[in-house]
Amino acid sequence: MDYITKYAPFLVKYSHVVAALFLGYLAAKYLNNTRIQSLSADDEHSRAKRRSGKPKDDENWVNGGQQLAKANPAVNNEEEYQEADHDCLEHEDKTPQIPYKGDNYPEEEMLERSRRFYEEMNKRRSIRLFSDRDVSLEVIKNVIKTAGTSPSGAHTEPWTFVVVRDTRVKRELREIIEDEERMNYQRRMGDKWLNDLKKLKTTWQKPYLETVPYIIIIFKQVHSISADGQKKPHYYSEISVSISAGILLASIQNAGLVTLISTPLNCGPKLRELLKRPPNEKVMMLLPIGYPTDDVTVPDLKRKPLDKIMFLV
Amino acid sequence: MDYITKYAPFLVKYSHVVAALFLGYLAAKYLNNTRIQSLSADDEHSRAKRRSGKPKDDENWVNGGQQLAKANPAVNNEEEYQEADHDCLEHEDKTPQIPYKGDNYPEEEMLERSRRFYEEMNKRRSIRLFSDRDVSLEVIKNVIKTAGTSPSGAHTEPWTFVVVRDTRVKRELREIIEDEERMNYQRRMGDKWLNDLKKLKTTWQKPYLETVPYIIIIFKQVHSISADGQKKPHYYSEISVSISAGILLASIQNAGLVTLISTPLNCGPKLRELLKRPPNEKVMMLLPIGYPTDDVTVPDLKRKPLDKIMFLV
Repeated sequence: MDYITKYAPFLVKYSHVVAALFLGYLAAKYLNNTRIQSLSADDEHSRAKRRSGKPKDDENWVNGGQQLAKANPAVNNEEEYQEADHDCLEHEDKTPQIPYKGDNYPEEEMLERSRRFYEEMNKRRSIRLFSDRDVSLEVIKNVIKTAGTSPSGAHTEPWTFVVVRDTRVKRELREIIEDEERMNYQRRMGDKWLNDLKKLKTTWQKPYLETVPYIIIIFKQVHSISADGQKKPHYYSEISVSISAGILLASIQNAGLVTLISTPLNCGPKLRELLKRPPNEKVMMLLPIGYPTDDVTVPDLKRKPLDKIMFLV
Repeated sequence: MDYITKYAPFLVKYSHVVAALFLGYLAAKYLNNTRIQSLSADDEHSRAKRRSGKPKDDENWVNGGQQLAKANPAVNNEEEYQEADHDCLEHEDKTPQIPYKGDNYPEEEMLERSRRFYEEMNKRRSIRLFSDRDVSLEVIKNVIKTAGTSPSGAHTEPWTFVVVRDTRVKRELREIIEDEERMNYQRRMGDKWLNDLKKLKTTWQKPYLETVPYIIIIFKQVHSISADGQKKPHYYSEISVSISAGILLASIQNAGLVTLISTPLNCGPKLRELLKRPPNEKVMMLLPIGYPTDDVTVPDLKRKPLDKIMFLV
């Protein structure tokens, strides 16, 4: 104490000030730590939310998640472990078993079928100009039934297909999407955009959203509510829904119709509201479906050859 | 001031203490805010990493990300804006255009085609018991070529299909997956597992990984390297690869073969090493492909009826 009095007399004189400074610091630190914790918890929560349906592709991140789960018992360990049950998109369960009889084509026929199916699918192109020619609703129902045969994590079937036929809903939908697109272009282009609006118009405007007979909006269900009112998370819902979209595309192509698969995610909440879907459903994809215009063109893109996508070991 | 002196004389007497408390509070707040910002930036960074291939399903989160990008120029704005280009899985670009001629089936035929395709796909089931009967490699090539016709974000075609035919590689692959599965069961089951090992064996063991003629492991390419050595991120790669997997499943079913799509993510890095794939490729799915055993059974699951998955507006 003598030492302090000698060399830093102000510390004694202003000891209450120093104490107050320290107390203020501690108080702020406590308050802010609480905030950091709640930020982390929010993030873990939103991660867990996003994670339903999104497997982890980074081992470090997985371990991080598990360490966090250990450090903080409030984080649902059950969820971590269920998530680790990565085995299968369709899981084995207690439901009774029935015999399965597959098709059994002779080798030549199998080869021929696989070749023809490739040729059919290889004709598929994303189309941006749709005719207003009508399509039978029965065909739309069939392609969606087909998408519904997709496998899904734990057989949760976490998909909802909203089919928009109503003219007014199509118009509102177009407005929502064009507003968002316009903002994207504006943000991206800055001043250039302001001077060059006319040229860009063709890019953010989507008149086909009103001319096309149907628009399919695909929602993923991030969870469901079980009989006892509990949230049941849907793991891998994003993968499952995307696989289902792949089968939908195959089915649309097989029927001789065309589409353009897009992911209008910035306007998800607005679309969800417009289409009156519950909060557990999130917009994933949007597909206008119909016939192309007579004079439609597509970019002359090549697909990667087999030896760039397949490796035999 | 008179008012304060009258009613709160301590505020005047201890004004320096109050000031010090406030200063201490501010200092701590500043320091902690810096920490919060760096936490958020880290998170944004890891989000951005994970986001390659994963679109955002929460508008608040999206806006948050954009605000953060604005507030903190260190966050890669370019990436934010590219990400905002959510328009299309196949984008319009500068490549020359060619005319597109679609199929044009009479309405009756279209309806019939869509019905038959539904019936074909509806027969598909996930199979867990595979015969060792061989399959022509040409058929495998055709189903993978078919998967390669899938649309993809900005036509990046971010998929790699590794086809495992070699017996030794299949054995190593089985070991990697069973090791991971055993750990999952152990973690999940705790002591119960130790007492009950025998019964569980049937669950984590995957002998079919050695009997089946081919195993397809699907990798997503999270980025590519452009001609000038720059990393080119692949947006939506996870969605694109999953759509492609859906078309693969359709193609396998059409050929009369069976599979079981699974997402063996905990063993991704080990599988990547075993199959000698570069670090920009991450294991997404694994599909044994072949014939079912003669006596195979499947759970008697029902699919959701159309009115539970499709909503017409």
